[in-house]
Amino acid sequence: MSDLEIRPAALNDIPAVVAMLADDPLGSRRESPEDLSPYEAAFRRLADDRNQHLVVAVREERVVGTLQLTVVPGLSRRGATRSIIEAVRVHADERGGGLGTQLIQWAVDESRRQDCQLVQLTSDATRTDAHRFYERLGFTPSHVGFKLTL
Amino acid sequence: MSDLEIRPAALNDIPAVVAMLADDPLGSRRESPEDLSPYEAAFRRLADDRNQHLVVAVREERVVGTLQLTVVPGLSRRGATRSIIEAVRVHADERGGGLGTQLIQWAVDESRRQDCQLVQLTSDATRTDAHRFYERLGFTPSHVGFKLTL
Repeated sequence: MSDLEIRPAALNDIPAVVAMLADDPLGSRRESPEDLSPYEAAFRRLADDRNQHLVVAVREERVVGTLQLTVVPGLSRRGATRSIIEAVRVHADERGGGLGTQLIQWAVDESRRQDCQLVQLTSDATRTDAHRFYERLGFTPSHVGFKLTL
Repeated sequence: MSDLEIRPAALNDIPAVVAMLADDPLGSRRESPEDLSPYEAAFRRLADDRNQHLVVAVREERVVGTLQLTVVPGLSRRGATRSIIEAVRVHADERGGGLGTQLIQWAVDESRRQDCQLVQLTSDATRTDAHRFYERLGFTPSHVGFKLTL
């Protein structure tokens, strides 16, 4: 495989990122790649926030992966800062090739650089392959993740 | 019960907040109320971040509850903003009196004010009473929460 670069997402990466968000059993029902305006507005908001890190993985000038890392300071655990990983996606052409591991490793390394003491994420209960993947990377499935749609 | 106020935490609320974080089966092992300096540093970082809302519940000038609400913009779900609830604590004297419900209701209302489309939280798998509490409030336990300590 040729060299991979993981770098901050730029506005012109958004179409490729949204295509990956939509190319997913759950994402296909909740994304609208035909109208990019809400995604571009969200991108600008992320770009203005120094605790937000939306990145893309690029191989041969093609966006093949993405994730969002959020740095969350807090009082609990002796004032520990934690990071939260969301919206991990690997392009269909790259699945099974180790790119997911590289993306999560990037997020863990960046969390250390940002002095986080904890990395956390939630994964839909139906994504059992993803659960095994995170456990292999050392994550512990110690919590129940609750959501309320407004 | 006398009137309750839920308001942003101030620096001089920190001792009471940390005492509540420590007065908990899990928190008692990971907090250090005898040294407040890491908590005060974390408080200043939270106060500087407009997406962070650390609040206290106050009754008769006494801090009796706390939670942290983080607003997280993102690309997925058509550029949806979500909020994350962390570090919910109710003073031992107030447990079972409905204060937890009021705190979560505050967080849900504030999330709506901030145009969030989703509220999420994770709860340690051992906190089964908390799980029933969140389900009664309309939250769905749809996810597995993974953590990695750095």
